[in-house]
Amino acid sequence: MSELRKDPIIDRWVIIATERGKRPTDFVSAASAGEPASCPFCEGNEYMTPPEIYAIRSKDSLANEKGWSTRVVPNKFPALRVEGIVEREGIGMFDKMSGIGAHEIIIETPDHGDILHYRTPKRIAELLETYHKRLIDLKGDNRLLYVMIFKNEGERAGASLTHPHSQIIATPIMPKRVKEEIDGSLAYYDYKMRCIFCDIISEEKRFGSRIVFENISFISFCPFASRFPFEIWLLPKRHMSGYDAMTRQETFELAECLGVTMKRLAVALGEPQYNWMMHLEPNSEVPRNPWPDIKAHYHWHFEIIPKLTRVAGFEWGTGFYINPTAPEDAAEFLRGADIE
Amino acid sequence: MSELRKDPIIDRWVIIATERGKRPTDFVSAASAGEPASCPFCEGNEYMTPPEIYAIRSKDSLANEKGWSTRVVPNKFPALRVEGIVEREGIGMFDKMSGIGAHEIIIETPDHGDILHYRTPKRIAELLETYHKRLIDLKGDNRLLYVMIFKNEGERAGASLTHPHSQIIATPIMPKRVKEEIDGSLAYYDYKMRCIFCDIISEEKRFGSRIVFENISFISFCPFASRFPFEIWLLPKRHMSGYDAMTRQETFELAECLGVTMKRLAVALGEPQYNWMMHLEPNSEVPRNPWPDIKAHYHWHFEIIPKLTRVAGFEWGTGFYINPTAPEDAAEFLRGADIE
Repeated sequence: MSELRKDPIIDRWVIIATERGKRPTDFVSAASAGEPASCPFCEGNEYMTPPEIYAIRSKDSLANEKGWSTRVVPNKFPALRVEGIVEREGIGMFDKMSGIGAHEIIIETPDHGDILHYRTPKRIAELLETYHKRLIDLKGDNRLLYVMIFKNEGERAGASLTHPHSQIIATPIMPKRVKEEIDGSLAYYDYKMRCIFCDIISEEKRFGSRIVFENISFISFCPFASRFPFEIWLLPKRHMSGYDAMTRQETFELAECLGVTMKRLAVALGEPQYNWMMHLEPNSEVPRNPWPDIKAHYHWHFEIIPKLTRVAGFEWGTGFYINPTAPEDAAEFLRGADIE
Repeated sequence: MSELRKDPIIDRWVIIATERGKRPTDFVSAASAGEPASCPFCEGNEYMTPPEIYAIRSKDSLANEKGWSTRVVPNKFPALRVEGIVEREGIGMFDKMSGIGAHEIIIETPDHGDILHYRTPKRIAELLETYHKRLIDLKGDNRLLYVMIFKNEGERAGASLTHPHSQIIATPIMPKRVKEEIDGSLAYYDYKMRCIFCDIISEEKRFGSRIVFENISFISFCPFASRFPFEIWLLPKRHMSGYDAMTRQETFELAECLGVTMKRLAVALGEPQYNWMMHLEPNSEVPRNPWPDIKAHYHWHFEIIPKLTRVAGFEWGTGFYINPTAPEDAAEFLRGADIE
């Protein structure tokens, strides 16, 4: 089983995921394992994955057979597992706990070549509904404090298979980066009695120069302090702390905003590889909850980071990023992309 | 001029380094610029760099000519510049400041193919002395709160030139990651009245299983909560908050420890690309100094991270790392490397 270990100096946990099967000698040859001969995520190969947890599929089809449009399965080499109990232990001055959690794969489409920015808003909305269903289900397990939904597109972004897929990892501790963001939103709320994300949306609309796309309910822009060239944030305009609160109409609006934004990125930069992360309200069962007012001060959103530059020693050592492209220039370039 | 911008939610600054000359269209072609036909860092090409700031060179040689063994020059495309004054400004709800700082290149050797782990300890000691000289000089500028010395080895690690070199960036603000580490060491000191790094060294010696190499004055090991496979930390055994305090004898001990550690890594894993970062005591001129006792609770060190895995969406979203190799296994594999 995997284990979670805590850095004693800063509040950073790591997952030592020995089940993912990297032995020291696996790193000696730099050659990557490459794609399997047959793709386990393609329609007709359902038997190659663990049994499905959820799927959007036609009424007359059977689980783990053809006839689906999105399909969720457990990761075959999970970083964390749902079975077992959370055990905590000290070893000398160090702290560890058992690797309880969840690690799921969302297969976004039965068709290997059906990449996201070519899909219709209706198809993207199915993916978003799948995210929503799994989020609600996983939040029912009160051992899991946080559910992270993310997508790695391309090898540089960390994907090992090319078939379009997203992932979910639910963790038994509150991740450091999440805590920092929520604490930041609380500090602002304490000072101003307003949501910082709502204020950022107003400012972005006032400036206009960093906006990539907006519709009635959603907006995407290159943030003022972008860490990376062409970094994009995408937020609901309505104040909403959790993705749980989305209406059906909003899901369609989000599908449009996400689809257009990703298409602009793909057309402008020649289909760059990217990561996207959903920053969502944590499970409400946080022990000794430090955020009783989270519904007031937090605001869920997407962060999208194209893989155009390398993270180097300076960034690793300082947490301070060097971005060679001003977000105003990036947004202008994206708005100019011809996506018809 | 570059500018520094602050993320309004979390305490993270970025450098928008427009002088580094990436226009949006530069990202459209994924092809890298490649090596220049003639290497500006090779002996005989001194005229290709800005004039040198410092060099270790033979007594009868002239500045910016042949005859040097290490050579420090300003970065031709600096992220930050020393000229000017620190100006702070608010734009609506956002904060920015002028990009004052320093960005230098340390050319480690006149010989293009002279990679670090083949060098003798005496040659590595020259590099370490060069680091020391530049650190002392830059700390004399009280606008610069932190001096980061780092090395990017290989393209995956962010290096754009292959000739062996290190870099220094000195910043006008205290980087987030540095602050967190020093705050962590202070919290431990407040609780135990001991240096947390000294305690970690004792624990690592007691366990033994994570040690890579040690001599009289230095120790290297794979840390308990390693973020990456084969991550290595290297520390002085004597409590020492700043690198400024190194003796000549300790510089030789460090050169040996660093040389053997890097050679073990190179032999065991087939010369992986890597970053190393020196985590050093900040400049003492910190405004409203939150660490009056830093000499007691902080302890400088190296962090070395080989580029063997990709950082993906989960890590970006949570600050939580998945490491597929236990540090005990990594250290054992490194100790077994035949470096004779």
